[in-house]
Amino acid sequence: MNETDPLVVFTPSGKRGRFPKGTPVLTAARQLGVDLDSVCGGRGICSKCQITPGYGEFSKHGVTVHQGALSEWNAVEERYDQKRGLKAGRRLGCQAQVMGDIVIDVPPESQVHKQVVRKAASARVIQMDPATRLYFVEVDEPDMHEPTGDLERLERALREQWEIPEITADLTLLSKLQPVLRKGKFQVTVALHQSHLDSVPRVIEIWPGLHESGLYGLAIDLGSTTVAAHLTDLESGEVKASSGIMNPQIRFGEDLMSRVSYAMMNPGGDQEMTRAVREAINTLAEEIAKEAEIDPSLIVETVFVCNPVMHHLLLGIDPVELGQAPFALATSDSMALEARELELSAINTRARVYVLPCIAGHVGADCAAVALSEEPGKSEDLALIVDVGTNAEILLGDKSRVLACSSPTGPAFEGAQISSGQRAAPGAIEAIRIDPETKEPRFRVIGSEKWSDEDGFAEEVGAGGITGICGSGIIEAVAELRMAGLMDESGLIGSAEATGTARMVAEGRTHSYLIHDATAEGGPRITVTQGDIRAIQLAKSALYAGARLLMDERGVDKVDRVVLAGAFGAHISAKHAMVLGMIPDVPLDKVTSAGNAAGTGARIALCNVGARREIERVVREITKVETAIEPKFQEHFVAANAIPHKTDPFPELAKVAPLPNPSFNTGGGEEGGRRRRRRG
Amino acid sequence: MNETDPLVVFTPSGKRGRFPKGTPVLTAARQLGVDLDSVCGGRGICSKCQITPGYGEFSKHGVTVHQGALSEWNAVEERYDQKRGLKAGRRLGCQAQVMGDIVIDVPPESQVHKQVVRKAASARVIQMDPATRLYFVEVDEPDMHEPTGDLERLERALREQWEIPEITADLTLLSKLQPVLRKGKFQVTVALHQSHLDSVPRVIEIWPGLHESGLYGLAIDLGSTTVAAHLTDLESGEVKASSGIMNPQIRFGEDLMSRVSYAMMNPGGDQEMTRAVREAINTLAEEIAKEAEIDPSLIVETVFVCNPVMHHLLLGIDPVELGQAPFALATSDSMALEARELELSAINTRARVYVLPCIAGHVGADCAAVALSEEPGKSEDLALIVDVGTNAEILLGDKSRVLACSSPTGPAFEGAQISSGQRAAPGAIEAIRIDPETKEPRFRVIGSEKWSDEDGFAEEVGAGGITGICGSGIIEAVAELRMAGLMDESGLIGSAEATGTARMVAEGRTHSYLIHDATAEGGPRITVTQGDIRAIQLAKSALYAGARLLMDERGVDKVDRVVLAGAFGAHISAKHAMVLGMIPDVPLDKVTSAGNAAGTGARIALCNVGARREIERVVREITKVETAIEPKFQEHFVAANAIPHKTDPFPELAKVAPLPNPSFNTGGGEEGGRRRRRRG
Repeated sequence: MNETDPLVVFTPSGKRGRFPKGTPVLTAARQLGVDLDSVCGGRGICSKCQITPGYGEFSKHGVTVHQGALSEWNAVEERYDQKRGLKAGRRLGCQAQVMGDIVIDVPPESQVHKQVVRKAASARVIQMDPATRLYFVEVDEPDMHEPTGDLERLERALREQWEIPEITADLTLLSKLQPVLRKGKFQVTVALHQSHLDSVPRVIEIWPGLHESGLYGLAIDLGSTTVAAHLTDLESGEVKASSGIMNPQIRFGEDLMSRVSYAMMNPGGDQEMTRAVREAINTLAEEIAKEAEIDPSLIVETVFVCNPVMHHLLLGIDPVELGQAPFALATSDSMALEARELELSAINTRARVYVLPCIAGHVGADCAAVALSEEPGKSEDLALIVDVGTNAEILLGDKSRVLACSSPTGPAFEGAQISSGQRAAPGAIEAIRIDPETKEPRFRVIGSEKWSDEDGFAEEVGAGGITGICGSGIIEAVAELRMAGLMDESGLIGSAEATGTARMVAEGRTHSYLIHDATAEGGPRITVTQGDIRAIQLAKSALYAGARLLMDERGVDKVDRVVLAGAFGAHISAKHAMVLGMIPDVPLDKVTSAGNAAGTGARIALCNVGARREIERVVREITKVETAIEPKFQEHFVAANAIPHKTDPFPELAKVAPLPNPSFNTGGGEEGGRRRRRRG
Repeated sequence: MNETDPLVVFTPSGKRGRFPKGTPVLTAARQLGVDLDSVCGGRGICSKCQITPGYGEFSKHGVTVHQGALSEWNAVEERYDQKRGLKAGRRLGCQAQVMGDIVIDVPPESQVHKQVVRKAASARVIQMDPATRLYFVEVDEPDMHEPTGDLERLERALREQWEIPEITADLTLLSKLQPVLRKGKFQVTVALHQSHLDSVPRVIEIWPGLHESGLYGLAIDLGSTTVAAHLTDLESGEVKASSGIMNPQIRFGEDLMSRVSYAMMNPGGDQEMTRAVREAINTLAEEIAKEAEIDPSLIVETVFVCNPVMHHLLLGIDPVELGQAPFALATSDSMALEARELELSAINTRARVYVLPCIAGHVGADCAAVALSEEPGKSEDLALIVDVGTNAEILLGDKSRVLACSSPTGPAFEGAQISSGQRAAPGAIEAIRIDPETKEPRFRVIGSEKWSDEDGFAEEVGAGGITGICGSGIIEAVAELRMAGLMDESGLIGSAEATGTARMVAEGRTHSYLIHDATAEGGPRITVTQGDIRAIQLAKSALYAGARLLMDERGVDKVDRVVLAGAFGAHISAKHAMVLGMIPDVPLDKVTSAGNAAGTGARIALCNVGARREIERVVREITKVETAIEPKFQEHFVAANAIPHKTDPFPELAKVAPLPNPSFNTGGGEEGGRRRRRRG
């Protein structure tokens, strides 16, 4: 390089340098450390290194570019353009040579570490840095005079052409290595997995010639009720399909503790449950690959997030120790596995599996994934993050310190243990308002956007009718009963006499509030009973007590903001949650929904191998609080039983719609099935 | 430590140092780096650290030892002595404390790196340094206030108690970790595998409390014809049992090339052969564990040596490329595998498998094992090492350089393609002498130590009688025919007229020599035909040509010594081999037998992990010579056709018995079945 050589400036990085005339743009980019992709290593066949040369004057960069600053369009580019089409103004970086001063833009799709912008309001981007990548190599043919194995020559090719010093491969790969090398005339593409948990990069797959059908990964949120998966393109980061199925372990027990009991009571019961969930994951993987129209063997990575019991049952470990103090995990660290170890036969047999670390015996990899997605440890203000499910995972923290616990809310928030309760599915009442004057309800059911007092509601709800009340509906109902003056602070429902409305129905020694009665047409009678109130009180007290316990530990009595995570969190009305006392009071605009944050965390770990190291570090630094042994948890639990607000704390907002689910609304954790089935 | 502290001198190492009164002998040994074993880490329960204190004056060490130089016999030692018995004069190193100047002897069985002396005349010792070892640890119980996984606490215990920084474990181990820890009250013994091919030590097995049933490994010599295994105690190095079975792949083809053809002609044929050999290995492992009366799950390591085709078929790789130039191996490097990858279900499911590296497409891991056992690269004089089988592996070298090739001798040396030929089995003629005067033969058959002209021969040979002639028998027969003047240099058998003996029988246009005729009793008629001579000439020419090719490459026309390896090599008469021109002429005392050197190499690699690194380095440095493409090989082959010696080159030795088989005579490579069946 000397001062008379042409100056090359890359945007958006701003990196610049002088290169002799005739230097390919890709070579210049590599020497400057510019993030320009290439799978074929500059052979003009993969087209990943597309760039856009700029012509004219670039005052910002101090460069005037003349026509002829790049070599002419060549035959390789012409052939590619005719075959696949190049966007106007684009060149192939490996073909175009620097001939004069030039400004070269690297478009996002040509960057290796491209950023994937999520749909979320929070707009956290995922930077692509996947563990598994494609490399095209030309391997030396075997030579009797210098006998080496084909694997050793492939290794040499990767070392010489890609500076990868060493590789390993398992027997299933070895058994196909020789035919593939020969089919590709010793030109092959390998999918290489490099992770901080594996000392040596591993060949996951090999294809003859240039492989152009992509590479995929599955981010799986394995919940007690639902298994949700996001099929992600490992090159672009794009989610190609999302799908969920019910966790078949439900037949062994609705909640986690009944499954632990099943394992304790039935010899081999844990293995039965392990088989069931692994089969379900295989089914899900097949379905999602079919939906995205890809070959399932192109799925070369899977990331799992799950609670500790599901974690153990997925791995084939008896969860019995998690059912009793001291709630010892068999292992808490993150894990790198092979698909076949988990019998995941539906995807590539050599696919790698990453399981996020667990935080504690009750606080699982799903909570770790929420921490990865929501990053409380990077928050300037003090954030309370609640992932509501059968157990609530609670994180409290800011830059100085993060605390975590799990609280046994039970299944009431999911509509279970509620007299008219049901899962979130078409026909379930999901939102309700009670007029403070008339004490009359109006409501909305899943499957319709209309309120029950709007025209056309009956037509839309259709034959299935109104079938019950789901988690978000019961929360709103209880809060509305309180604000309408139909229930006192202790949660006691008033009588028809005391409240002056016939909606109050005596049932034995207590009263219920009648929402909907279709018994005349053979339909259901939907009420909120005193028992329902008690169940919700227990659940919300547990949630609140967990949050309070972390606040005590942190030495604060208020938080700056609240994040509701979980697909369920996306549908809870923040106002009603605060009226109920589920969460500490904060200004309404300080309550946000993170959608399926656990699923998002899984996707981040799938797309960025650095995020795996990051969450492993974060988990080690989190202060773990065990609710089961803290006497103060009981105190907070009892104290939280009351329903404090007797009026609307946010009267300026006449109608508070459920928060929009900002992202990932097709999947879901514990309650992920809801939206899926509703839209399906 | 100061100058008034007692002086401790350890023998045989001679290491010495001063230690404060009350220092346990084990602690002193560790601080000085003395090789003193301990599994329990000084807790007085494993008894591996036994030492013998010396009393009196030790002029060599300048120490006078008084009674009381060690603390008194304590309760722990008393309990152990009553339970198991301690040899007279022995103390437990972890209990006995230094109280005054003392000389302490570490007996061989208390040394970790104990040396195992082989029975061989060459007396090469194996130094114990196995990859898998036992560690007793006390693991912290789980604590809700500091939640960590059981695996992570086991890791911490190994770090704190044994300075092992990091461990890993697979899912099958994880699934038993929690019950075993609790059964052992958090005191467990782990078998930990540490190898240069694995970045992190791996837990292979875990037992509650102190594990005292030992730890075993299998050294397996996987030949085309026979699979031989040596069950070895990984603590003492002792061979507990040796056994062999026929390779069931014989039904797909007698020799390697017919198996390669079978794979080429039959879709899935390679997998059929892979299944067959893996099943055979499982059967062998079961049998050998039964014979040694050990639990097969205590077999935690296996080392394989084999030729390239068997190597590929064991690993599940189609060997088709090995059947045609350029004879490309799928992989040539050594391999670290899990038993389950090879479907070795008879041994511990987590057992580790080490496969020695291959040298070239025709020169396998078996030849590498011979190099490990015979160490041509450490030889002062130029050694020619020949492992005779269906293919002959040939090594030539000394300290300056080692060369290797493989030569296609064909199966004639094993009795195949010989008119009266048979495998080495009872009834086979294995040695023969022809009287130069009378031209009459006398011979010995497998199953009897008597010669055919000795009294009682007929009784000993028994009902089975004389059935044929095996490899060593045909070699002797051809050489004796030459020395008796019954055959010329070109290998042409003379007529009855020309030789003056009726033993010469005309058969068509050529003649045969009649050794034994039992047709009158319905038995066989055993002759050496002109065709037999031609077959042996082809085989010996190939062997000789291979050796000559290496000598050319090395620029020499003679070697200093010859080593015959292989169980077959152990039975060849060196004199007859030289008369025949199988091997270059050297003084008779410069021909030695290495016995089953490949099996010995496997055992060395099993017992000493450093030997694995060593052979990997050696193999990289060996000069590989490919006979198939060297025009000079053909020249040497043609030139070697003649049988040069017409008289006994060693007339001073009237009768030359076969060389004794110095070691490993129960197993065997290609022909290992012989001795086994003979003695069985």
